[in-house]
Amino acid sequence: MTVPEEVLKLAEDIKNMRIRGAGEIARAAVRGLSIAAAKSEATNREEFLRDLDDAAKVLLLTRPTAVSLPNALRYVMVRAYKAYEEGRTKDEIKESVFKASDEFYKNSLKAIDLIGMYGSRRIEDGDIIMTHCHSTAAVSILVNAWRSGKRFEVISTETRPRYQGRITASILAKEGIPVSLIVDSAARFFMEHVDKVVVGADAVAANGAVVNKIGTSMIALAAHEARVNFIVAAETYKFSPETVLGSLIRIEERPADEIVETQYLKDNPGVKVRNPAFDVTPASYVDLIVTEKGVIPPEAAILILKEEFGWFSSVNLPKFLKEGLETPVEMSEY
Amino acid sequence: MTVPEEVLKLAEDIKNMRIRGAGEIARAAVRGLSIAAAKSEATNREEFLRDLDDAAKVLLLTRPTAVSLPNALRYVMVRAYKAYEEGRTKDEIKESVFKASDEFYKNSLKAIDLIGMYGSRRIEDGDIIMTHCHSTAAVSILVNAWRSGKRFEVISTETRPRYQGRITASILAKEGIPVSLIVDSAARFFMEHVDKVVVGADAVAANGAVVNKIGTSMIALAAHEARVNFIVAAETYKFSPETVLGSLIRIEERPADEIVETQYLKDNPGVKVRNPAFDVTPASYVDLIVTEKGVIPPEAAILILKEEFGWFSSVNLPKFLKEGLETPVEMSEY
Amino acid sequence: MTVPEEVLKLAEDIKNMRIRGAGEIARAAVRGLSIAAAKSEATNREEFLRDLDDAAKVLLLTRPTAVSLPNALRYVMVRAYKAYEEGRTKDEIKESVFKASDEFYKNSLKAIDLIGMYGSRRIEDGDIIMTHCHSTAAVSILVNAWRSGKRFEVISTETRPRYQGRITASILAKEGIPVSLIVDSAARFFMEHVDKVVVGADAVAANGAVVNKIGTSMIALAAHEARVNFIVAAETYKFSPETVLGSLIRIEERPADEIVETQYLKDNPGVKVRNPAFDVTPASYVDLIVTEKGVIPPEAAILILKEEFGWFSSVNLPKFLKEGLETPVEMSEY
Amino acid sequence: MTVPEEVLKLAEDIKNMRIRGAGEIARAAVRGLSIAAAKSEATNREEFLRDLDDAAKVLLLTRPTAVSLPNALRYVMVRAYKAYEEGRTKDEIKESVFKASDEFYKNSLKAIDLIGMYGSRRIEDGDIIMTHCHSTAAVSILVNAWRSGKRFEVISTETRPRYQGRITASILAKEGIPVSLIVDSAARFFMEHVDKVVVGADAVAANGAVVNKIGTSMIALAAHEARVNFIVAAETYKFSPETVLGSLIRIEERPADEIVETQYLKDNPGVKVRNPAFDVTPASYVDLIVTEKGVIPPEAAILILKEEFGWFSSVNLPKFLKEGLETPVEMSEY
Amino acid sequence: MTVPEEVLKLAEDIKNMRIRGAGEIARAAVRGLSIAAAKSEATNREEFLRDLDDAAKVLLLTRPTAVSLPNALRYVMVRAYKAYEEGRTKDEIKESVFKASDEFYKNSLKAIDLIGMYGSRRIEDGDIIMTHCHSTAAVSILVNAWRSGKRFEVISTETRPRYQGRITASILAKEGIPVSLIVDSAARFFMEHVDKVVVGADAVAANGAVVNKIGTSMIALAAHEARVNFIVAAETYKFSPETVLGSLIRIEERPADEIVETQYLKDNPGVKVRNPAFDVTPASYVDLIVTEKGVIPPEAAILILKEEFGWFSSVNLPKFLKEGLETPVEMSEY
Amino acid sequence: MTVPEEVLKLAEDIKNMRIRGAGEIARAAVRGLSIAAAKSEATNREEFLRDLDDAAKVLLLTRPTAVSLPNALRYVMVRAYKAYEEGRTKDEIKESVFKASDEFYKNSLKAIDLIGMYGSRRIEDGDIIMTHCHSTAAVSILVNAWRSGKRFEVISTETRPRYQGRITASILAKEGIPVSLIVDSAARFFMEHVDKVVVGADAVAANGAVVNKIGTSMIALAAHEARVNFIVAAETYKFSPETVLGSLIRIEERPADEIVETQYLKDNPGVKVRNPAFDVTPASYVDLIVTEKGVIPPEAAILILKEEFGWFSSVNLPKFLKEGLETPVEMSEY
Repeated sequence: MTVPEEVLKLAEDIKNMRIRGAGEIARAAVRGLSIAAAKSEATNREEFLRDLDDAAKVLLLTRPTAVSLPNALRYVMVRAYKAYEEGRTKDEIKESVFKASDEFYKNSLKAIDLIGMYGSRRIEDGDIIMTHCHSTAAVSILVNAWRSGKRFEVISTETRPRYQGRITASILAKEGIPVSLIVDSAARFFMEHVDKVVVGADAVAANGAVVNKIGTSMIALAAHEARVNFIVAAETYKFSPETVLGSLIRIEERPADEIVETQYLKDNPGVKVRNPAFDVTPASYVDLIVTEKGVIPPEAAILILKEEFGWFSSVNLPKFLKEGLETPVEMSEY
Repeated sequence: MTVPEEVLKLAEDIKNMRIRGAGEIARAAVRGLSIAAAKSEATNREEFLRDLDDAAKVLLLTRPTAVSLPNALRYVMVRAYKAYEEGRTKDEIKESVFKASDEFYKNSLKAIDLIGMYGSRRIEDGDIIMTHCHSTAAVSILVNAWRSGKRFEVISTETRPRYQGRITASILAKEGIPVSLIVDSAARFFMEHVDKVVVGADAVAANGAVVNKIGTSMIALAAHEARVNFIVAAETYKFSPETVLGSLIRIEERPADEIVETQYLKDNPGVKVRNPAFDVTPASYVDLIVTEKGVIPPEAAILILKEEFGWFSSVNLPKFLKEGLETPVEMSEY
Repeated sequence: MTVPEEVLKLAEDIKNMRIRGAGEIARAAVRGLSIAAAKSEATNREEFLRDLDDAAKVLLLTRPTAVSLPNALRYVMVRAYKAYEEGRTKDEIKESVFKASDEFYKNSLKAIDLIGMYGSRRIEDGDIIMTHCHSTAAVSILVNAWRSGKRFEVISTETRPRYQGRITASILAKEGIPVSLIVDSAARFFMEHVDKVVVGADAVAANGAVVNKIGTSMIALAAHEARVNFIVAAETYKFSPETVLGSLIRIEERPADEIVETQYLKDNPGVKVRNPAFDVTPASYVDLIVTEKGVIPPEAAILILKEEFGWFSSVNLPKFLKEGLETPVEMSEY
Repeated sequence: MTVPEEVLKLAEDIKNMRIRGAGEIARAAVRGLSIAAAKSEATNREEFLRDLDDAAKVLLLTRPTAVSLPNALRYVMVRAYKAYEEGRTKDEIKESVFKASDEFYKNSLKAIDLIGMYGSRRIEDGDIIMTHCHSTAAVSILVNAWRSGKRFEVISTETRPRYQGRITASILAKEGIPVSLIVDSAARFFMEHVDKVVVGADAVAANGAVVNKIGTSMIALAAHEARVNFIVAAETYKFSPETVLGSLIRIEERPADEIVETQYLKDNPGVKVRNPAFDVTPASYVDLIVTEKGVIPPEAAILILKEEFGWFSSVNLPKFLKEGLETPVEMSEY
Repeated sequence: MTVPEEVLKLAEDIKNMRIRGAGEIARAAVRGLSIAAAKSEATNREEFLRDLDDAAKVLLLTRPTAVSLPNALRYVMVRAYKAYEEGRTKDEIKESVFKASDEFYKNSLKAIDLIGMYGSRRIEDGDIIMTHCHSTAAVSILVNAWRSGKRFEVISTETRPRYQGRITASILAKEGIPVSLIVDSAARFFMEHVDKVVVGADAVAANGAVVNKIGTSMIALAAHEARVNFIVAAETYKFSPETVLGSLIRIEERPADEIVETQYLKDNPGVKVRNPAFDVTPASYVDLIVTEKGVIPPEAAILILKEEFGWFSSVNLPKFLKEGLETPVEMSEY
Repeated sequence: MTVPEEVLKLAEDIKNMRIRGAGEIARAAVRGLSIAAAKSEATNREEFLRDLDDAAKVLLLTRPTAVSLPNALRYVMVRAYKAYEEGRTKDEIKESVFKASDEFYKNSLKAIDLIGMYGSRRIEDGDIIMTHCHSTAAVSILVNAWRSGKRFEVISTETRPRYQGRITASILAKEGIPVSLIVDSAARFFMEHVDKVVVGADAVAANGAVVNKIGTSMIALAAHEARVNFIVAAETYKFSPETVLGSLIRIEERPADEIVETQYLKDNPGVKVRNPAFDVTPASYVDLIVTEKGVIPPEAAILILKEEFGWFSSVNLPKFLKEGLETPVEMSEY
């Protein structure tokens, strides 16, 4: 395998969470492919493609449960394969990789701006808006609304165990937006005064379920109970085409020491720590998803997926993604 | 500005509610554009287009919260612009306006007939059907069903403050349909005997929410509570493409004297009157929407919108609609 | 039958709704018994009791569906019967009637004050409170709260068909309370900003269901949907002991001309008008009932009933109330 | 009419339920058309088409409430008509019938395999899965999951009145899957330990409602109450295009003697037996539908329908299906 | 142990379900104690009491999960113990046993009549009433209502696995009541036309939960979903005082051959049969419980229990019931 | 004022949370009255009572929002006042204070044991039980169940901001119970595998609402959503008699530095911290409350309150509690 040092380094950074957040990871992944293309010492089209495949595989394995990561890789690789299949030269294929990486990068940033604009139109003067964790797209909605002159308040949960909510509060406060910080479990206490909830997403499934930071589904439930609108900000590259083929989005469990100090664990060997990083909010608790293509109800996620990836997405899968997909059992006997 | 007298008169009539109802307004609007086209004294293509734009703007501003109005104008104007962009002559553009206006007019009437036919298939012998306000499309369903030989009863709310429900009751009774009139707040009292609710719509949003006469959402809630089907009759030109871009449908507030006599207000200066004309029924309380294209669940409103207007509808917006659309804030810093 | 003229007059006034409202009717009924006692020309204990029974029956039949009426009569008659059974003289029995009538009268007024005090403690600064129809007990809560210095707003429905909500709005405005008047069907529209709903009651059943002005149950449903507290103000004499024995509280249907002018009915002979005066709010939509004995959850209505009337209330029924109660079918064969 | 003996025999078998199950019926129907094409003695294109139409009509009428049946016929007939309209020869049209029948047949079997594969990905180790009735597609999901090494338990209802659940239990047990058999009404009792419900479908409507064996909707309700995922396995040819045009899916009522012995009915002439074969599960109780095209939320059924049949499906209807479709009443007068 | 032959025979009959139904069992139990008292050869008060205790224990163990059984025994034994503690002679204690047994017997029959009368008042002309299984008290309500002239229809489930619903249908039909028989899983299908559900109970818990024949809770859920009143008929001796002390009501599992023939089990050794006899309906799905003391909401079950048994019922427990009750762990260390 | 030093010290400890937890505070309060009685230098009955009143007032004001505190004081003071009113001597009154304090103390400990025993009977082998915060009564239930041989697992939330859940996990682990620790917002994630939730209470209101550590109501909501039993352990002295008179239980807001370090607040002056210590779980989410008097549904809280304090509890209030209670506004004018 001839994956360049720089790509390995990038992969390492994603693995160790020096690069994190669904958007950052996706953008790093396409950059990785560009680097791999640039550094490839392949002497023919076939070798070049194999080099790309190797780099893609290394990048893919850094965070096997992410959704934006394979989508980003797929965006570039599908174009490279297409160029290959059309009989283009090695250099033309390389060019297609550079172009696709660049496109993905720019689109992903533009998506945040558009989501900010579309979502901000749902904010009204006097609103009290709850948010959870730290999502660039969700922050974009709030900041767009504030800069367009709307005046509202935000309640930000602290978001245990890693307190990303403090970052959100900090950013909003700097923008001048009045913001209160609460513990996660106080969400229902304040919900009766809340007008809207705005959160981001790590992934969106074929049936409109939203995967996001642990706690999101409880806030969605409390919003639903109190007839409060629940708005999700999600770029379309967070929609998971694998879920159309039935795959469940796996929820990453993270280390115990994010939750308690090591000493506590030593003192209490009988206590086990469970630390799932995300949870799943069912579509019925989501009022709308704001994407860069427009506002949709969660049940229309399949429409986005179909447009972006086609029905039978496995057809479009580059080889490195296809491996490990099972063959169906023949059921004709029943 | 060179907007013809007749168009100004039409605009005035829409503003003063001499012309009212989402369908009537839409049909008046396209007629207005036809007149503007006919009366235009423009000497070249550019001038002609500007005349159209001026007329469109005047018509648009008569009811800034309506949805059928911009849709009707867009239908005609998009075709005029297209002709312009294809380099057609002034007369050809004019012809395209006449043709589009005519099409819109005929389609809007045909839509009512088709909705009547499709919706009537959901009615069963022995049904007790509740309706609210006066909607031509909803009445079309009931009359179609009755004329096709089905036998059922209708409960019509009176629909405060303007009592449009009395008109509905009157029409249905003339058709021979047994109909009872009740106060709006008795809807839940009778709901336990009701089999279906059939209402019209003023607008349908991207997430399937239905905007209709004030009180509709309470009846939908009571129907939902009692597991009663809630059916909305809505022509596709009532679907709001702006909501795909995040816009909220604004709810018009109307004058106090629709609710109390002026004397009461004088006697009770401390009493404020609030008179919203519409309310919003969430998609989860709507079983299906009957359109002229077929029956859809509310969550598929986005499908209709996408087909009729495309994803990024602002691209298709004639100039007069584009103005005032904000630019997104650049969020790359977060 | 020797019912005095004055009592007949009183009965007539109740029947024709010159005297109305559950409290007014109850107080008039005990006054009627006092008059009957005072005017009785009976020469012995038995005759005197028969005179009372006759008067009670006349009064009872004026509004056969009311609940406060038989309760008021029962309050006095049970004491008269007790005196009789203890062998008291005619004059002593008469005295017991005067005393009981007076007690009931004073208690019923004191109940409103106590309900006002207890209920006012649930009101908080900044609240937006919705109310429906006109209830002295509910108004007592709002006025008590206001006079104790709390600052809040009220939204009052107009309460079709008889517009009692306008009276409520008028009273509250005179007190200085900011009040808005809305059509009944706008209740859900405004509910998302409402903090509490406060209404009165015409009757409370053994299972905690609340009978009140038509429309109450829809508002309760909308409050429940939005996690808004729903508070009922009800004197204990509105609790129906008959419901412990299984009786349904019958809902009075009132004349069509309360809803439409006679001309409309003539013009539209096919239109029937249905005008139920009350509806039933299930216990699960009521957060608490404020009585003069304290605040209870609706499910504890049975506790009040048991304390006030005992389990097997038919045992305590004066003869005039017992008539028409069926005997159970013997089921030993199954 | 010149329908061949063999086709009549096939029709008879469908009618008498010797051939049953939505898939078997559909496959028999296309075989019927192949036979009709092969046996046709038509001497020209027009005659040939008429022969096909006759056969289609005979087959269609065997089970007028089925959905897979007209869909299967339509699949073949649309292609035959197309060939006709393109001016093809009689033999070419015949060839198109053979080809279409064969395609439908193979696709319908492949669909079961794909559904099995996609659906099996939703199953997790340790799951307790409830199922109802006997569905080849649902069984395919369970067997695929088991063969791919996942370990779980199944609870199968017996499925009164015809006990198809016993067949399901038997098949699964033979596969080695631990399976428990319960009476239908015990579904809620066991639901608190259930992780997922997997069932088949007889039909899927435009609004995502699922028609399946009587009892399915109760189990769906109990699953919904307990936040248990409810998964439906349905080939796309079970989606009903007629429902887009408003048609209700009619529920077949079957004979009393499926439920009680004839003797009981004789002994109890006052007892009527009601035996609906299916019920309707609303979309809001279905988490996802697994089709051979991928996994969709029920609200996206319309998307499948639109892709398979187009919006205005009556346009595509072969003549034999069009008959009896009413013309809409003209509503321009209102 | 000196338990008389006849009592042992009675115990055997209860065990083998020759005597069954909560009421029959309870009445048999008190008869058993009467026999034991009559046949006792005890020569002193202590011996006599021991004989009673022995008989009570034998009877109690026949159906360890029943609720009416210990309640019936307790009714008699508490009175015997009281007589003993008051220093009465052996013969006086014996007399107290006869008297208490007789009282219990008569009260239990009278309860059915009173429940019939109270419950029948909830039935209205035109009602469609669903019932499940066979309950004498529920039938009493329906027959009382019918004989008092009300006209309604009944839908009776068949009630798998033992088909007691056929008995109910048969009884009601003989009374002239129009009745339909359905499979249990069709309950939701018909629920949309149902006005009330009336069922019996095997036990009622301290928190108002109702234990009744398997399937009851599913019907209650479907009634709740459709805003249909759910009425339970239950004599007070079915209320479980042990649940006040935290005990769960255990659900009996019955033999597999009630559900499938033995042959099926032999052919399918991998299929396990689960056959719980009862399920638990939560209080929130029950509108009211009709007892012989009156109509109560389920949440007031505790009120009945407190009145009948006192708060700390273990204090009142005869020795034979006390055994096996644990002692609490001392928690002072935490 | 002559409050002894030791009592002042005790009051200080309560105020500064050196003494905390509803039970500890209550027991400290009665000890304080004993000390005040012992140290009183009063020379007559009146003076002695005044000394008690002074001490009671000082103790009461330490935590004005607690419920167990006034209940404990009331328990002792009511008895002292009674002795006074019966004309007892100073020493007899003093004795009554010692006796009452001792009684309250012992009862409060015994209550925990009884709750442990009653509650443990609801636990079943194989259960997964979630708990929140640290409650001695809830722990008592779990430990009792474990020691009686039942085998189950516990999931304990960490309980931000003060992490009392870690203490609970520690105690349970020491007992040998398998326990997992999670962040509060993961409660819904794990709820689908949970069988029961067991928590304590800081206060119980007249309508059955439960006040407990912030986050409790969210867990209750998630339990309700998933049909999981929610069990509250609460000694009867935590029931609030003031709520019968309408008082709202006030929720204490605690300092910001419990949630973030002071540095964060300095760095982010625009960020406000909100830190409510408790929230309110509505009765409809609580399945049962385990008290030392037995298990009740939350709606029966009023029954406990009535038994413990009588209806009109203000009648029983010692003077020091009565102050500040408003007089009702006279409403006779309306």
